[in-house]
Amino acid sequence: MYLTQVLDRGVQLKPRHPALVCGTQTLTWTALHHRVTRLAGALQALGVTSGDRVAMLADNGFPYVEFHYAVAWIGGVIVPLNTRLSDPELVYILNDCTPMVLLIGPEYAGRRAALAVGCPGLQAVIALGDVTDPLDYETLLARHAPVLDRRRDGQDLYAIIYTGGTTGRPKGVALSHANLVANTLALISVNEFTEEMVYLHNSPLFHTSGSARLLAAVSVLATNVILPRFEPAAVLAAITRHRVTHIILVPTMLNRLLNNPAFDDCDLSSLTHCVYGASIMPEALLRRALLQMPGVRFAHSYGMTELSPAATSLPAKYHVLEGPLASKRKSIGQAILTAEIRIADSADQELPRGEVGEIQVRGPMVMQGYWGQPALTAQTLRGGWMHTGDAAYMDGDGFIFLVDRIKDMIITGAENVYSGEVENAIHEHPKVSECAVIGLPHPDLVEVVHAVVVPLAGVTLTEAEIIDHCRLLIARYKCPRSVEIRQTPLPLSGTNKVLKTELRRQALAAGTG
Amino acid sequence: MYLTQVLDRGVQLKPRHPALVCGTQTLTWTALHHRVTRLAGALQALGVTSGDRVAMLADNGFPYVEFHYAVAWIGGVIVPLNTRLSDPELVYILNDCTPMVLLIGPEYAGRRAALAVGCPGLQAVIALGDVTDPLDYETLLARHAPVLDRRRDGQDLYAIIYTGGTTGRPKGVALSHANLVANTLALISVNEFTEEMVYLHNSPLFHTSGSARLLAAVSVLATNVILPRFEPAAVLAAITRHRVTHIILVPTMLNRLLNNPAFDDCDLSSLTHCVYGASIMPEALLRRALLQMPGVRFAHSYGMTELSPAATSLPAKYHVLEGPLASKRKSIGQAILTAEIRIADSADQELPRGEVGEIQVRGPMVMQGYWGQPALTAQTLRGGWMHTGDAAYMDGDGFIFLVDRIKDMIITGAENVYSGEVENAIHEHPKVSECAVIGLPHPDLVEVVHAVVVPLAGVTLTEAEIIDHCRLLIARYKCPRSVEIRQTPLPLSGTNKVLKTELRRQALAAGTG
Repeated sequence: MYLTQVLDRGVQLKPRHPALVCGTQTLTWTALHHRVTRLAGALQALGVTSGDRVAMLADNGFPYVEFHYAVAWIGGVIVPLNTRLSDPELVYILNDCTPMVLLIGPEYAGRRAALAVGCPGLQAVIALGDVTDPLDYETLLARHAPVLDRRRDGQDLYAIIYTGGTTGRPKGVALSHANLVANTLALISVNEFTEEMVYLHNSPLFHTSGSARLLAAVSVLATNVILPRFEPAAVLAAITRHRVTHIILVPTMLNRLLNNPAFDDCDLSSLTHCVYGASIMPEALLRRALLQMPGVRFAHSYGMTELSPAATSLPAKYHVLEGPLASKRKSIGQAILTAEIRIADSADQELPRGEVGEIQVRGPMVMQGYWGQPALTAQTLRGGWMHTGDAAYMDGDGFIFLVDRIKDMIITGAENVYSGEVENAIHEHPKVSECAVIGLPHPDLVEVVHAVVVPLAGVTLTEAEIIDHCRLLIARYKCPRSVEIRQTPLPLSGTNKVLKTELRRQALAAGTG
Repeated sequence: MYLTQVLDRGVQLKPRHPALVCGTQTLTWTALHHRVTRLAGALQALGVTSGDRVAMLADNGFPYVEFHYAVAWIGGVIVPLNTRLSDPELVYILNDCTPMVLLIGPEYAGRRAALAVGCPGLQAVIALGDVTDPLDYETLLARHAPVLDRRRDGQDLYAIIYTGGTTGRPKGVALSHANLVANTLALISVNEFTEEMVYLHNSPLFHTSGSARLLAAVSVLATNVILPRFEPAAVLAAITRHRVTHIILVPTMLNRLLNNPAFDDCDLSSLTHCVYGASIMPEALLRRALLQMPGVRFAHSYGMTELSPAATSLPAKYHVLEGPLASKRKSIGQAILTAEIRIADSADQELPRGEVGEIQVRGPMVMQGYWGQPALTAQTLRGGWMHTGDAAYMDGDGFIFLVDRIKDMIITGAENVYSGEVENAIHEHPKVSECAVIGLPHPDLVEVVHAVVVPLAGVTLTEAEIIDHCRLLIARYKCPRSVEIRQTPLPLSGTNKVLKTELRRQALAAGTG
């Protein structure tokens, strides 16, 4: 199976059906094919050939999808850039993987000069939405004829996607066509993707979770509704207007949808499937979601860019609050069809069920490696297994319970505290909307537990209430020593994970801890 | 993804759940893993190693499944034998692909001597159900320890499955691990395979349609109910008893189920999915099926052994008698996700929609080739496309309408019969001058084999002589049901080919069939 063949397939099977919808605009499969093959022609005319990298810095939109398929069409490798990164970070990435061409959205036109100066290797910058530019995107499409699909597959690289290194520089995760085919076929079966599906792409397409689901949804010839970015009111409006059936969210986003004033006025009856990732669903949030969105099948998916990205799934039937299946709800589910997963110790020996060790994954979704980093690649993939760096145990039925990211662990005194456990406890408090738990340095205890809490709108919440509440649920040493109550939402990363490094920075600047 | 990894997966995720059910016996995933790895050990001790062939002649049962996985486990290649073939046909096949070991079921013990004599290359024959035999199957399993999975994949051969040949001799279709992985992943999405599914395997596992669906159903860790062979009352009883959800049938089988006296007394409420193949569903049969099995989603699948086997799907929504979708019902559906299909002329140029040409297929499901026949392989796969020999046209939405079989094939019951193979057998008779074999319509079997024979001048020849003669050489289902003995030469076309359409017209006018 070729990732690019889906465009020919769309023209053959659904020539006049909508492929992409964004705002009031629609592209049929025929129109998408037309535009992709012409963009491919334009890139080829600029000199891009097999193996060359092409980068993009833009919000979600038709061009993002066209960029994906046109670069693959001529055998190139896409480099989707995280729009939230600073100029120095982007310059580092562009000089690391040396793309020949950069496509830049109108929202980021102001950053063009800094990137061009910092990256002398760039041979062309294509501007979106600027007809005065000699390399204006639409002008290029109009001027170039279609070219032939080079039908790349197997180990040929499809994308280099940068992930924030927990320490140091971003790492370029090199994913092959076979990696993304494996993910596509797995997602289709695990998340019940069908041709009739209307998929809402509200997550950034510069992240694997967004782009891999785009590839899968396009592959089944679903209708793909694209939002420039996540914005609760726009998501609710899009679901209603386009009769969206499938969506991917993280619990933070789901929480914001439920809390949005427009929620109750929207017709969300079309929505049948909601996949969430990045973190376990807090029980209070699940309770609200099941109550307020009764027709929706929730499924949890665990993964990471290095795994293209999905590795596990917790299907809808476990999203219940009572009964024999409810005990699995706090897991990240079981290995998906294409993944082999084991829990291993630091010597890479598989551990007995119930013992905490590292999640290791083997299968066709495991990345080719970190771009230009053979030593790190060999270390991460040693023994043929991807070492995730996440700590978990597996129960007798293969359900995996994440304990926490090994690196997110807080060490206080002689005890280890997993922030997820503290956050779960705080989320049980009825007045809490959002929370995050971090470790702050301490001269005596190495670190102490600190919580940042956002209360529900209009309620009053104190530090003492949170600490007292936690003491009822978890060991004293795990309870926060300090709590910041804030009214503004928590800062989020591109994957909508709470930016704990930023919280830590703010807390230290404010003199906490 | 490895086909064999599913056994480890079963032990990890569903250790105590039923994997296989046959009659009153059940094997859990743990027990299946235990038996497969020991059979693998036994085969390895017999000298079987990577690339070696291992054949099986048996009805469906646990050992058939164990044979599949154990041979793959040690890197071997399975050769499932059609139990309906004659001894000379089986001897031909065994000498063509030279398996090292043959497993033989108790139902076929009487044929062992003839095969052993005809195939001196066979190094061992494992007997099922005969504890007095030194190579008794269960004794071997008890005596051998598990061995390690060799983790074959990609282009490594998984199976050689023989199909009737257009020019007489059976051809061995060589299928790789990647071929069957592609089919597995496609079937899961197209036919809505899930872990909760209870799949009834009533089709012979020596056919690709049966064995490929076994691999797919095992891959999702469904419960697999196995019947030794298709028998309407047993199928109905198994559905009721085991709460079967998924089944594959051909229209002939469906007809027999509906006509069975036990039908009305059975509880078929568990059945949700029925895939059928081999021929289009006649309208009268569909009407009855929709009325009598209202909860069942019917789907049609077109394919052939060379395609591992599925290439198209006509989903449930088109199985309606009225409305805008009903017009698609007489098609074989659209290309499945992993398949590229085109309709081409004899110069392999794609034809415009609506024009009749040959169905050609490209994708990861296309066989590696015909065993030991490089010229025929190159001819069949020329230009990178599998030439199916079936004539069809494609409509504006990519639905494919089968017009005729270029290959001169008769479909009777669930079996394909190549006219050339039957004609070769008839020509062996010393009294025959000319002959032609055609299919005539039949209410239950779709078609039946009919022969038109011209004897040598001055000799007397009877219908019974021809039929008895054929039964010595070819499988019973390939033998003519009726024979016309005529004294006039066969009608010829301008290129001196027998005008089979004219013969068919004459036979129908004469009331034959």
